[in-house]
Amino acid sequence: MDFANLDFDRKNRTGFAEVVFCERKADEFLVDIYKKLYANDGRVFGTRASDHQFELIREAFPNAIYDKVSRILQVPPADNKEIQLVGNIAVVTAGTADIPVAEEAAQTAEYFGSKVTRFYDVGVSGIHRLMENRDSINEANCVVAVAGMEGALASVIGGLVSKPVIAVPTSVGYGANFGGVSALLTMINSCANGVSVVNIDNGYGAGYIATQINRLAVGTE
Amino acid sequence: MDFANLDFDRKNRTGFAEVVFCERKADEFLVDIYKKLYANDGRVFGTRASDHQFELIREAFPNAIYDKVSRILQVPPADNKEIQLVGNIAVVTAGTADIPVAEEAAQTAEYFGSKVTRFYDVGVSGIHRLMENRDSINEANCVVAVAGMEGALASVIGGLVSKPVIAVPTSVGYGANFGGVSALLTMINSCANGVSVVNIDNGYGAGYIATQINRLAVGTE
Amino acid sequence: MDFANLDFDRKNRTGFAEVVFCERKADEFLVDIYKKLYANDGRVFGTRASDHQFELIREAFPNAIYDKVSRILQVPPADNKEIQLVGNIAVVTAGTADIPVAEEAAQTAEYFGSKVTRFYDVGVSGIHRLMENRDSINEANCVVAVAGMEGALASVIGGLVSKPVIAVPTSVGYGANFGGVSALLTMINSCANGVSVVNIDNGYGAGYIATQINRLAVGTE
Amino acid sequence: MDFANLDFDRKNRTGFAEVVFCERKADEFLVDIYKKLYANDGRVFGTRASDHQFELIREAFPNAIYDKVSRILQVPPADNKEIQLVGNIAVVTAGTADIPVAEEAAQTAEYFGSKVTRFYDVGVSGIHRLMENRDSINEANCVVAVAGMEGALASVIGGLVSKPVIAVPTSVGYGANFGGVSALLTMINSCANGVSVVNIDNGYGAGYIATQINRLAVGTE
Amino acid sequence: MDFANLDFDRKNRTGFAEVVFCERKADEFLVDIYKKLYANDGRVFGTRASDHQFELIREAFPNAIYDKVSRILQVPPADNKEIQLVGNIAVVTAGTADIPVAEEAAQTAEYFGSKVTRFYDVGVSGIHRLMENRDSINEANCVVAVAGMEGALASVIGGLVSKPVIAVPTSVGYGANFGGVSALLTMINSCANGVSVVNIDNGYGAGYIATQINRLAVGTE
Amino acid sequence: MDFANLDFDRKNRTGFAEVVFCERKADEFLVDIYKKLYANDGRVFGTRASDHQFELIREAFPNAIYDKVSRILQVPPADNKEIQLVGNIAVVTAGTADIPVAEEAAQTAEYFGSKVTRFYDVGVSGIHRLMENRDSINEANCVVAVAGMEGALASVIGGLVSKPVIAVPTSVGYGANFGGVSALLTMINSCANGVSVVNIDNGYGAGYIATQINRLAVGTE
Amino acid sequence: MDFANLDFDRKNRTGFAEVVFCERKADEFLVDIYKKLYANDGRVFGTRASDHQFELIREAFPNAIYDKVSRILQVPPADNKEIQLVGNIAVVTAGTADIPVAEEAAQTAEYFGSKVTRFYDVGVSGIHRLMENRDSINEANCVVAVAGMEGALASVIGGLVSKPVIAVPTSVGYGANFGGVSALLTMINSCANGVSVVNIDNGYGAGYIATQINRLAVGTE
Amino acid sequence: MDFANLDFDRKNRTGFAEVVFCERKADEFLVDIYKKLYANDGRVFGTRASDHQFELIREAFPNAIYDKVSRILQVPPADNKEIQLVGNIAVVTAGTADIPVAEEAAQTAEYFGSKVTRFYDVGVSGIHRLMENRDSINEANCVVAVAGMEGALASVIGGLVSKPVIAVPTSVGYGANFGGVSALLTMINSCANGVSVVNIDNGYGAGYIATQINRLAVGTE
Repeated sequence: MDFANLDFDRKNRTGFAEVVFCERKADEFLVDIYKKLYANDGRVFGTRASDHQFELIREAFPNAIYDKVSRILQVPPADNKEIQLVGNIAVVTAGTADIPVAEEAAQTAEYFGSKVTRFYDVGVSGIHRLMENRDSINEANCVVAVAGMEGALASVIGGLVSKPVIAVPTSVGYGANFGGVSALLTMINSCANGVSVVNIDNGYGAGYIATQINRLAVGTE
Repeated sequence: MDFANLDFDRKNRTGFAEVVFCERKADEFLVDIYKKLYANDGRVFGTRASDHQFELIREAFPNAIYDKVSRILQVPPADNKEIQLVGNIAVVTAGTADIPVAEEAAQTAEYFGSKVTRFYDVGVSGIHRLMENRDSINEANCVVAVAGMEGALASVIGGLVSKPVIAVPTSVGYGANFGGVSALLTMINSCANGVSVVNIDNGYGAGYIATQINRLAVGTE
Repeated sequence: MDFANLDFDRKNRTGFAEVVFCERKADEFLVDIYKKLYANDGRVFGTRASDHQFELIREAFPNAIYDKVSRILQVPPADNKEIQLVGNIAVVTAGTADIPVAEEAAQTAEYFGSKVTRFYDVGVSGIHRLMENRDSINEANCVVAVAGMEGALASVIGGLVSKPVIAVPTSVGYGANFGGVSALLTMINSCANGVSVVNIDNGYGAGYIATQINRLAVGTE
Repeated sequence: MDFANLDFDRKNRTGFAEVVFCERKADEFLVDIYKKLYANDGRVFGTRASDHQFELIREAFPNAIYDKVSRILQVPPADNKEIQLVGNIAVVTAGTADIPVAEEAAQTAEYFGSKVTRFYDVGVSGIHRLMENRDSINEANCVVAVAGMEGALASVIGGLVSKPVIAVPTSVGYGANFGGVSALLTMINSCANGVSVVNIDNGYGAGYIATQINRLAVGTE
Repeated sequence: MDFANLDFDRKNRTGFAEVVFCERKADEFLVDIYKKLYANDGRVFGTRASDHQFELIREAFPNAIYDKVSRILQVPPADNKEIQLVGNIAVVTAGTADIPVAEEAAQTAEYFGSKVTRFYDVGVSGIHRLMENRDSINEANCVVAVAGMEGALASVIGGLVSKPVIAVPTSVGYGANFGGVSALLTMINSCANGVSVVNIDNGYGAGYIATQINRLAVGTE
Repeated sequence: MDFANLDFDRKNRTGFAEVVFCERKADEFLVDIYKKLYANDGRVFGTRASDHQFELIREAFPNAIYDKVSRILQVPPADNKEIQLVGNIAVVTAGTADIPVAEEAAQTAEYFGSKVTRFYDVGVSGIHRLMENRDSINEANCVVAVAGMEGALASVIGGLVSKPVIAVPTSVGYGANFGGVSALLTMINSCANGVSVVNIDNGYGAGYIATQINRLAVGTE
Repeated sequence: MDFANLDFDRKNRTGFAEVVFCERKADEFLVDIYKKLYANDGRVFGTRASDHQFELIREAFPNAIYDKVSRILQVPPADNKEIQLVGNIAVVTAGTADIPVAEEAAQTAEYFGSKVTRFYDVGVSGIHRLMENRDSINEANCVVAVAGMEGALASVIGGLVSKPVIAVPTSVGYGANFGGVSALLTMINSCANGVSVVNIDNGYGAGYIATQINRLAVGTE
Repeated sequence: MDFANLDFDRKNRTGFAEVVFCERKADEFLVDIYKKLYANDGRVFGTRASDHQFELIREAFPNAIYDKVSRILQVPPADNKEIQLVGNIAVVTAGTADIPVAEEAAQTAEYFGSKVTRFYDVGVSGIHRLMENRDSINEANCVVAVAGMEGALASVIGGLVSKPVIAVPTSVGYGANFGGVSALLTMINSCANGVSVVNIDNGYGAGYIATQINRLAVGTE
């Protein structure tokens, strides 16, 4: 822990407590970081955790919770009190393979206090599935659109709703998808207005921004 | 003309007479090629011609016709007899800026004897425009889908119709569209089935393939 | 005008009237589109217009206004009544060369009813300029961060404020900036949270999204 | 199965039943999907399956069939009645390493009712092998040309036949082949007419389109 | 001329006198370089010259010769004695648009003393044109294969002949040809043996290497 | 050892003894090289070593030292005499994941006789951490700035200090970071002066250059 | 001038006064910036100026000096007193076409008080030219190596000298040089130590860093 | 073996017998191909073989020989008669890590009857090693230059010798070397004449071409 320089001031500055990006963190570092953050915040939220890291954290925090789909590894607060979720964020995916990234976004938003509505596997190759949910999606304060392959979902949603769309390209696909670059370019070049983009597979970032917007909408920012 | 090696056998082999790609052809070469092809076929069809090239060809062939939108420069047959158009090809564009490429496709298909139905400016950012035309589009034997920017049009059409979709990415857009590469990648990675792709702005190629398919459908190949 | 398929329903669906992207539109098309939109909406807003296009539109609408910096070409409403601007959007640039894109964003936001505060030429190579304005920037409901070259501005702002940051990479720079791709990648890979990205030089898109967010914050969406 | 949103209407819309892309599907999802599709269609066809997935499906469907070369995993109809294959599709490869992709195309086409003729290992470095088969290839209604490395096969075939050529770049090769991008670019830039392209290694997509064309030719679409 | 550091030793080291790459050379520099080289070698050979540069050099050397197609600008030796050309190099092009690059190669080889046989416009989309010339091409000691678009010519020739093939990709094409990169990749990934590649449009380089090989074959190196 | 051609003259020419790049070296080669260098120099310094290579070298040199973080594998001099470190180099990282590369730089500089001051985990998303250390960093003769993801650290430091900044992009990140290319482009396009760049993850190179500069500053070069 | 936010504190922070990047600056902005800087510093130094901008500045400052090769546009101090140049920087180019970039570097270094020694047109295709100057180059405190095309110069120099090498890739070349990217990659991947890299054609940046190092060496930083 | 279409006519056409590219060949295919080729040619030569494939072939041919460095797997002729090697090919590498590719080239050339002289680990960072061997290298009829990282070796050799240089980029390096693309670009953009390039790591191809040239030089083609 000599090296890590935890940013405990972050919550004051930005309204969001520090979160752990678990991937590639050395074992002893990870445990130390979880302990320090728990001591400071009374709870910890980590993304991109592995099974092995869950085992590791569970030794220190027996009540730790790990979700295999989203790979989120949490230590809940001691009193286990549920946070009151507010507002409404729609999380939409093109296919089933995009769900892990979508769940990272959805659970991040929930962790930060936002209510989430999920619309999964409604991609544009069977567009009736999207059209049927159009009104429900538009009720949200913000839409997170998650898609790989050609990523056309974001453009179609952008043309249907009046709320900001946070587009998340995923690495789902093969061949000339270039690990998600194809979907990223599609979303950056969207002919629809109201679409902004985060990094490939960056569900966490999308859930964070969606929460910023949701908080503004409900007046809790 | 010493250098050009015109492929007069092409019609026998492939069923399509040779066509002139006018862009960057030197003046004296272009006129010679038009003359040789007219002598052999009794008509000439050229793509990507400029105003200047039209002037040039009109000196040799006063009845030459130039369409500024598609940039197609034709010398019609002497008897001016209309070809009987058969079958049905749908040519669809996302925006108005894609129309020059679409017209190159449509007029190529017509030159080779196909009937064409046009659906322009029905891009996915206002998807009702496409949904309204869905049944008419599906009546065609083949769909040519022309789109720039993020190129999502091809995927949505691919999910709606039962006929082959020839996708044409266009260079319309700016920034990270990379002169059409973004739309090309979108179309190559399409989540919908039945979509194959030609080069950026290659309206001629799409019109040619659509005609091959249309001929098979009407039994005139 | 046979080809253009104006989306008059857009305002109902998305809360934003249709806007004209002037670049590369043919003269007669442009005038027709301005006329049709004026007839429908009582005002017109166009981006990326040229001097020549201003002359053209001024013939039809003598009260047309053209801003050379942002290249925005407007026909104001007949009564010239000022819209009441609400909320607060911060538009920030790294250098002076980024100002044209920033103005496209700012004036778009103003056109759609948002109040805008400008912070120009406060790039990270002299970071005191940014630090001095930190509190004022954080008062906004949304920050538009405009930067070319290496585009580091967005990350620094993202770490300082609690509101969503819409990052706009610009094509300002030379050599390995690849027409703005370098800044785009910087912003997409931002280590700071709360940053989402639009296309290179897409000031309009950023102003649009910032307005969506600003409307949610003031409760007028 | 809560998440998957199977598109049972697809056959009505497009004439083709839903197919399973097995790669990276979680075990329990895969089995559920096979069961749902079997219940609806009386047979199932999956691509890119692994040995492990074959074992899994065989537990539920003891009559499941797995082809190691094409990686296609089928559950045949209960009555095992052979479908009557119609028309003619030529599937051609440059080398032996391209055969897995070619077989995915060929068996897909057969599954959807097309007769297929195979021409394997006839690449352009020994062009007599292709010239000898030229007339047989041209008898087909559509040609699927499968090639990796420099992918020149498609251009040569395009110049020899009168039928549409669906070009499939493969990831076969090394060094500057960039996992198939080199072959993809070759095919997209083909100097021959009549060539359209699908994604790298997308044998399934090529077999699907070839069937669409074959059906049009035999009048069964 | 203070800056240029002419390499008069080059002929001793490599067997080839220094040659001038005219493109983007300042006027006064170019004239000086031609004068210095003429004084040393009694003749000068320059590539990529413009009309303007021809005028400039003609003032100093009234017997200067400029070939508009290859853009080669020579000052012949005073006695105008013809060099005896030896051996045999085949220069082959796919299309007529590749001829300027091919002529740069051919005239370079001739300048350095090689006999050249030209085979132009024999691209693979009409492969009979190449097959008819196969025996003549194979008589050469080295083949220069010049092609743009998808550049498949080099692979087909590589499979037909026993001599080294120097492949020259050209920038001919459009869209995803990326200014010749597509043809370059095709040639670098060639499935045929005996093919090595030079830079895009580098006719001079190919003519130089072909001469090195031709000299070895005739024993004059 | 027949193949390796050790450059024992390097120290005379450049002032730096030869160092071993261990990665991908075959076992027997590695041991031989360590032995030869030890015989010549009395100590050995290797980078990018693995645990396995440590075991291997320890058999031959029981006093070998391996640092798991930097992956540096040294054989210290027999007398174990400490080198007197001179001058001052600041090594700065954006995050904790950049520390392995930073340690390679720092330990390289120390091996070559430079004093090093470390500033770790002070990235721009919490810029107060950097501002607090600004004066200490500026006391160094040279700054090594190590950052992955968007790599904005180098630009901010470049604007704050008067000494040369050697920027080291790291492969830390995911998605569109392209293994460090994003950070590399950020640094190459830096709007701040005084920043030059080495290869991705090239801590060794940065430590070497920083030492060259530090030696010039203390007058020991 | 409302927008520009001149950084007059820069000299205090970094030891270097602000400099003007003239390219693409609007006329009225440029004149204003020159006036403001002159009022503050008593002299002005601008890079990448055009003939037109020279005319403009000369109206305001009749003693302005413009160097067509380097495109540097200076307003010298009123007393015209020569600065005493100290230390030694070697500026080396591969070809004559690289000289404009080299002069930008050299004159920048001279403006900031460094003595410069020039070695032009000593590229690696005639390596004796470099070897002859090896000892003189090594006398400098820092080497600026300027090269386009394949950019091999930096690696060879890096292996010959003991001082830091600042490598400047130039956009000189054609075809697959990608506007200087080829040379940039060569230099970033250099097998020689002591080489760091700046942006393509960034002579100014190299002259700046070389001065930082030269100042450290002579003890005037 | 039903699928493979061995090109037994190749030797007649090109003067070189068919060779096996072992990588990724299925076990049963590989054995069959070795058997068929042995039956036809009395010997077999395969590249890119693995240990496992050696075991496999040794079962069928107990006298099979495998070289771990070059990964070449041969079945020698029954009489084991040595071929008389003729001419002279120089194979040169920049580093020791390039030796496997160099050996593939060298042993290929030897298999096809050429005498080979090896010059290993003579890269440009210690250029005296190359200069010392300059005359010996120039005695060869053809030079194969093998280098990774920045690949500058080919340019330096090209400027020193009068014979054709076949440049082989290798994937040796890290970071921005992009698996050999950096070296490939360096070689394609070489400022030296007489350099042509093959695919990354394609030692076989280089050995083949070098043999073609060597045969021409000694008059055995």
